[in-house]
Amino acid sequence: MSYKNYPMVSRVVFGRGSFNQLGDIISPKRLNRKAPFIFLVDDVFKGNTKIISRIPIAYDDQLVYISAKEEPKTSQVDDLVEHIIVSHKDRPSGIIGIGGGTILDLAKAVAIMITNEGGAKDYQGWDLVKNPAIYHVGIPTISGTGSEVSRTTVLTGPEKKLGINSDHTPFDQVILDPELTNGVPKDQWFYTGMDCYIHCIESLNGTYLNAFSESYGEKAYELCLDIFMNDNPISEEDMQDKLMMASWHGGMSIAYSQVGVAHAMSYGLSYLLGTKHGIGNCIVFDHLDEFYPEGVKLFKAMKIKHNITLPQGLCANLHDDEYDTMIDVALSLEPLWENAIGNDWKQTITRDKLKALYQKM
Amino acid sequence: MSYKNYPMVSRVVFGRGSFNQLGDIISPKRLNRKAPFIFLVDDVFKGNTKIISRIPIAYDDQLVYISAKEEPKTSQVDDLVEHIIVSHKDRPSGIIGIGGGTILDLAKAVAIMITNEGGAKDYQGWDLVKNPAIYHVGIPTISGTGSEVSRTTVLTGPEKKLGINSDHTPFDQVILDPELTNGVPKDQWFYTGMDCYIHCIESLNGTYLNAFSESYGEKAYELCLDIFMNDNPISEEDMQDKLMMASWHGGMSIAYSQVGVAHAMSYGLSYLLGTKHGIGNCIVFDHLDEFYPEGVKLFKAMKIKHNITLPQGLCANLHDDEYDTMIDVALSLEPLWENAIGNDWKQTITRDKLKALYQKM
Repeated sequence: MSYKNYPMVSRVVFGRGSFNQLGDIISPKRLNRKAPFIFLVDDVFKGNTKIISRIPIAYDDQLVYISAKEEPKTSQVDDLVEHIIVSHKDRPSGIIGIGGGTILDLAKAVAIMITNEGGAKDYQGWDLVKNPAIYHVGIPTISGTGSEVSRTTVLTGPEKKLGINSDHTPFDQVILDPELTNGVPKDQWFYTGMDCYIHCIESLNGTYLNAFSESYGEKAYELCLDIFMNDNPISEEDMQDKLMMASWHGGMSIAYSQVGVAHAMSYGLSYLLGTKHGIGNCIVFDHLDEFYPEGVKLFKAMKIKHNITLPQGLCANLHDDEYDTMIDVALSLEPLWENAIGNDWKQTITRDKLKALYQKM
Repeated sequence: MSYKNYPMVSRVVFGRGSFNQLGDIISPKRLNRKAPFIFLVDDVFKGNTKIISRIPIAYDDQLVYISAKEEPKTSQVDDLVEHIIVSHKDRPSGIIGIGGGTILDLAKAVAIMITNEGGAKDYQGWDLVKNPAIYHVGIPTISGTGSEVSRTTVLTGPEKKLGINSDHTPFDQVILDPELTNGVPKDQWFYTGMDCYIHCIESLNGTYLNAFSESYGEKAYELCLDIFMNDNPISEEDMQDKLMMASWHGGMSIAYSQVGVAHAMSYGLSYLLGTKHGIGNCIVFDHLDEFYPEGVKLFKAMKIKHNITLPQGLCANLHDDEYDTMIDVALSLEPLWENAIGNDWKQTITRDKLKALYQKM
């Protein structure tokens, strides 16, 4: 048996206001005046001078606003890379992603595709990336996805929704500034926080579990309970700090194990319907009591506690070929099923079973 | 205020038997056939074919046995570096430390001193190292020190006991194989495990605490309780797995905060009397109920539970100048006191106070 040799984020800063250190951190990484830093920024921050004025733009640096309304796509990565290459004579000094999972995944993918030939879709899978990415920095502004610590960047391609999983994917630098999560809308806060919660449930109840993943997963799980199920609510600042660490630990937990049923099925939803990852996970997980009875029970309690109503009937009017598409995507994620169910997962996870589950959503 | 930009271990493998992957991991790092890997190995493994036969020695690689009976010294680092340089025409491909905190700290220091001029004592302090270290790998064989994740290597020099704290210190690769901790003598298991426990207490009760350190410290603390205070003892394998993770998380906790009174005072003991770090911490911590009342109470309970008797009267026959030496070393560690007590620590931490404490030990 061979164990993963996990590549970690090279450097991490944590602290309220640490975003102010971005300039000092990246300036030694500038290759020359014509080699720009490219800042990929969630467009919710457009006009938010509190954030935007603190982005240390200099020389030929470029700020690109990106909508996170849709899941990141391989074609979007290719367009961004082309745009960057065409706009600048020199290869960029680095890519800095400032946003949620969508922006962070795009930043990782763009940093990879600047030094690797072809299109992003060619690298969806495991260990297909040949050349090291350029320097890339991740700065989460919403907590839960774990994208800040992972070696993947999940993209929707023409044929599949699948990550670029590689040793070159993790960020060279992460800045964890919980203050940046001020003002996240409540529903998004919940859905993205639940991404972390579901990472914990899927990791802790998976067959791939080991003491490394378990210790990270348990801590992230505890933090989630403290945040989402506390009868004596903690302060907003504490909550932000803790949720940012929960995301980090939850990400480390799945890094060394794997996700499970909710992620496999929500990838199907997302691929077909464009459902965003956070809410998609919630919609799926709500119906997985058969696989994760205690986890789902607690999830339902958290929904009630925070007055969250999930959309219903997403799959009500789908045709058989659309169900087939979702089922194909979900079943293609073999490691996720193997982790969730075990080696013999194909005996119980049939197409009919998945269809019946999707029909409830 | 500026937050630390913490350099992380580049890669980590976790798993029972993962030591077998060492050859595959280091072979791509071999610069050429004449650039050897140097294996620094705790001499308790001499004749232990189960371990030694699995060290992947090739070409001009060299295995150096090192006694961990004494704390690592700057002169020892200088001697090792000279020996390595004299024995090989080419600069080594890497340094691989296989042992406890002493061996891991030596491996880090040797890797640094191969590329930096002068002696190891010149680099005791914070951020004095100019050139990147050569590739270095840490493989702990006893759990608790946290050396595997830290950016320091604590050395006893001619003038002080102090770490080489630098961004170049952390390992490029860590292999966490809990099986390697089979056969650790019970007293050492306890003392080194308590190093981790004390890291948690000092971090969680320090003024430098933040949500990052807290989440790691709390998890390491929980794991320590599970290991050392469990009424339903866990299996030996579980215990080994968990203690290795406790050490990792405890190390991450102090990495982003600081240690405290026990470490400051035990450095004094160690400098004067050569007391090993693990037992030294225990001897000191046993008398720190004034600073860490709950932590010390629980420590005393753990001593009883595991039938541990600490040496008494270490300082009984010391002269005033010897007390002065210990007190000088302890007081020189200002960040530790500031973390433990706060900015105004000099008002309460007097020479007389420390002398009175040392006199009890």
